[in-house]
Amino acid sequence: MSLQTEFKLDIKELEAAAARLKGQAVETPLLESELLNRQLDCRLLIKAECLQHTGSFKFRGAFNAISQLTAEQQAQGVIAYSSGNHAQAVAFAARKAGITSTIVMPADAPAIKIENTRRYGAEVILYDRKKESRENIAAKLQAERGGTLIPPFEHPDVIAGQGTVGLEIAQRCQQIDLRPDLLLIPCSGGGLTAGTGTALKSTFPEAQIYAIEPEGYEDTRLSLQAGEPVTIEPAHTSICDALLLTHPGTLTFSINRPLLSGALAVSDSEALFAMRAAQEFFKLVLEPGGAVALAAVLSGKLDVRGKSVIVIGSGGNADPAVLKAAWEKPG
Amino acid sequence: MSLQTEFKLDIKELEAAAARLKGQAVETPLLESELLNRQLDCRLLIKAECLQHTGSFKFRGAFNAISQLTAEQQAQGVIAYSSGNHAQAVAFAARKAGITSTIVMPADAPAIKIENTRRYGAEVILYDRKKESRENIAAKLQAERGGTLIPPFEHPDVIAGQGTVGLEIAQRCQQIDLRPDLLLIPCSGGGLTAGTGTALKSTFPEAQIYAIEPEGYEDTRLSLQAGEPVTIEPAHTSICDALLLTHPGTLTFSINRPLLSGALAVSDSEALFAMRAAQEFFKLVLEPGGAVALAAVLSGKLDVRGKSVIVIGSGGNADPAVLKAAWEKPG
Repeated sequence: MSLQTEFKLDIKELEAAAARLKGQAVETPLLESELLNRQLDCRLLIKAECLQHTGSFKFRGAFNAISQLTAEQQAQGVIAYSSGNHAQAVAFAARKAGITSTIVMPADAPAIKIENTRRYGAEVILYDRKKESRENIAAKLQAERGGTLIPPFEHPDVIAGQGTVGLEIAQRCQQIDLRPDLLLIPCSGGGLTAGTGTALKSTFPEAQIYAIEPEGYEDTRLSLQAGEPVTIEPAHTSICDALLLTHPGTLTFSINRPLLSGALAVSDSEALFAMRAAQEFFKLVLEPGGAVALAAVLSGKLDVRGKSVIVIGSGGNADPAVLKAAWEKPG
Repeated sequence: MSLQTEFKLDIKELEAAAARLKGQAVETPLLESELLNRQLDCRLLIKAECLQHTGSFKFRGAFNAISQLTAEQQAQGVIAYSSGNHAQAVAFAARKAGITSTIVMPADAPAIKIENTRRYGAEVILYDRKKESRENIAAKLQAERGGTLIPPFEHPDVIAGQGTVGLEIAQRCQQIDLRPDLLLIPCSGGGLTAGTGTALKSTFPEAQIYAIEPEGYEDTRLSLQAGEPVTIEPAHTSICDALLLTHPGTLTFSINRPLLSGALAVSDSEALFAMRAAQEFFKLVLEPGGAVALAAVLSGKLDVRGKSVIVIGSGGNADPAVLKAAWEKPG
């Protein structure tokens, strides 16, 4: 499906993506902790997408998009821009397909993400997040070199790929006879929210879905209030490097607006606390942005008592300094 | 099967254990990292048993044993002794069965293990590892109160339960068409080694199996040399609190002797390095004892080039202080 096609997110597209990803993506576990459940007086399950190839859910969308390129398109390679997780995912999916990739990344992205994107075989081009437009750099590269742009979220194939997270959650819930009351999703551009929200609602229409953002980057929350996509001007940065966009996608927001029951924001210290809890209770390493959905539950922003709650642990690519910091700051 | 029965570890016992554990234990993923594979020039897969209920493989054996008790036996509750992981496993398996548990634990076990054993509902009785015998304390308790002892490894049902780790590894290898050359198993009493080694050899008889111990606690290595179980006198302690026994089990060693190609030891700093690598490459939290098999590969103790290597990440119940220490010590 090309970007030019008028788009409607059909569950069949998600199922087709799941078929393409079968045997390629990790079918990540949905984990729970008896101890944490007792503490919270709810049933909390975490979808461990940090265990996905390249350490985040982004591999799903990247692979789903790249695997549908024609041989001619593949011969020209792919281009992407990303703060880090989509970068690694596109680089690895391209390597799997045997094609080249060029990735535009902010110079202040976590070192591990830049380094690993190179290790996965991509050519990395760094830019200044405050002065330059990554979209413009990517467009210029494309004009010069050719190649297909794989956007981080504004693309039906990317959204459908991310939606396989939701299909797996829904299937697992059916297997264990669990009816989810709440699904909390880390949200930046909104691709994971759009795909996964659509998938879960298809099986469990009564489940309430919340997008979780870092404090100060609440563009989805403010867009929901406004009824249309708005662009924010952040007053400060956040430790959640994966979630630092200032506006939702047009495509993703049009999908998410009717899906979402709301959007909530968490602070840096709440994200760090959730990183520690993920290690203690689930034995999972989450990066700050990957921990915000868990953080929203742990910090009591929703009443979860007696409910079945699913959070997505969307990525685990934290720099050692951040992993160390999580254990240094009591909270 | 009672301890009095003359024992022969039959693959059918393992399959029966797998049937009992279906839907009760987590079917843990077998994960790999493209980046680490390239660094090591091998295909390395880790069985993530830190994601098991209670944070270690021990739940499998405990549940398999407890679920076979008669209603009369269950009414009297269960007793166990353990440095921490078997303790939590028995406590949780007992709670699942709706019965009481009393656990004898060393006073110097990691605080998180003692605390969580209580949280899982057990009565915990602490003892001095250097002055008292946990076996004697447990026997005295049993004489006073009644109840069934669930030993940490010297029991066919416990070994069969742990062996389901190996059944899952073998099944997954067949699914992904991978023939394992090497299997490395963290080893203390030898129950995981016995069960899992038996299971893997049943499907892949040519796979070589190694037991991995902490330096200074090489009772299995020395027993293999001697051809019979020997008791060691450790000169120092080790950070690998889960693996501090001084002699292998009689039952487990009789199974392990013909299974093992050898036993290797790793240092504390090698275990800490492997904990960091597990976080970086696999996004898994391992405790020191759970990381020794990975440590043996990373420290180059075996030639793994060009091979398919499976390591078991057997547990993840590390104290925050140890998790922090892993990131503080460069290596």
